[in-house]
Amino acid sequence: MSFTVYGDIQSGNCFKIRLLLEQLGLSYRWQHINILNKETRTPEFLARNPNGKIPVLELSDGSYLFESNAILHYLAEGSVLLPTHRLLHAQVLQWMFFEQYSHEPYIATARYIVRYLGRPPEKEQSLQDKLPGGHRALAVMEQHLATRSFFVGEQYSIADIALYAYTHVAHEGGFDLAACPAVSGWLARVAAQPGYRGLDENATD
Amino acid sequence: MSFTVYGDIQSGNCFKIRLLLEQLGLSYRWQHINILNKETRTPEFLARNPNGKIPVLELSDGSYLFESNAILHYLAEGSVLLPTHRLLHAQVLQWMFFEQYSHEPYIATARYIVRYLGRPPEKEQSLQDKLPGGHRALAVMEQHLATRSFFVGEQYSIADIALYAYTHVAHEGGFDLAACPAVSGWLARVAAQPGYRGLDENATD
Repeated sequence: MSFTVYGDIQSGNCFKIRLLLEQLGLSYRWQHINILNKETRTPEFLARNPNGKIPVLELSDGSYLFESNAILHYLAEGSVLLPTHRLLHAQVLQWMFFEQYSHEPYIATARYIVRYLGRPPEKEQSLQDKLPGGHRALAVMEQHLATRSFFVGEQYSIADIALYAYTHVAHEGGFDLAACPAVSGWLARVAAQPGYRGLDENATD
Repeated sequence: MSFTVYGDIQSGNCFKIRLLLEQLGLSYRWQHINILNKETRTPEFLARNPNGKIPVLELSDGSYLFESNAILHYLAEGSVLLPTHRLLHAQVLQWMFFEQYSHEPYIATARYIVRYLGRPPEKEQSLQDKLPGGHRALAVMEQHLATRSFFVGEQYSIADIALYAYTHVAHEGGFDLAACPAVSGWLARVAAQPGYRGLDENATD
């Protein structure tokens, strides 16, 4: 099966999909979507995802799947990156929902304001408003990882991929990971996984 | 297996868990947690969920699971409420991630400001800021449900439970569902499912 991904590799939510596809050795076509040009608002794009967000995965039968963490789950099913044990499976989802609710809205949005929008003065208050939530999410991760190698079951999984995506570029939004040694060690373990090397260098493809 | 749920039935994220437990006929103990009294900030509670949020599910072996939609997934596995077909399973998760990212932060937060906080003047701007996102989420749901009975595969699933929780009380945050006939019809279909009747009446237990 071959896939098409509609996305922007600079977006952490899209980076997740590319990292997993590379690590699983799956073939795919990457269709760049420019969100600043409102390419997620066209009728063609809204037919793929009525919520107008990237990434979107197109399957070989022409069906579409959206929401980055649902795409990770689809792609990883049957692989070692998604545990089949009932509680471990649910814990993987637990950390993926944590990522989308308590992490991404703060850490990704701060980075978006700084990196995509160039930190305009009228967005400074929004940026400052995002920092406490981001620090809270990092503190939860730091506490969890202080006694663990990976998020679930001492094994690398799509929960790690989901949380890695925006954490490894959190400094671009102004978050200093020097105070989070366990998170920093985990970032290095994820980056050392097979299939990872070179992905960041290709990030502007 | 018997479960303990730490939660507040007035919270839609907790209501989800109770609805599913009732529909699956599982036995459980409900431990009320008062978030306004900061009962999610105690050391005991943070040992259950380091992110300090309800609901939390305690399993009979003493392990804990947090994030409402991960709890739904855990409880529904092996039942008809969670499809095993790979794409349908991922679509259930797709709508659950949509719920947590694009629906709950607007519709639940507006309701929280009105119902829990009593709509104080200093929160009026926050309330107004939440309305457009809530209307966008409802429009996505309305479009999807215009040609469908349930969110995934024409069958009632935990995706419906997740989205029902805050949609059926959206009017308490100021959202008028009169403009969403497909959503209104779907709400009635969910409320007609076996195991539902009486749950709202018990909501203040």
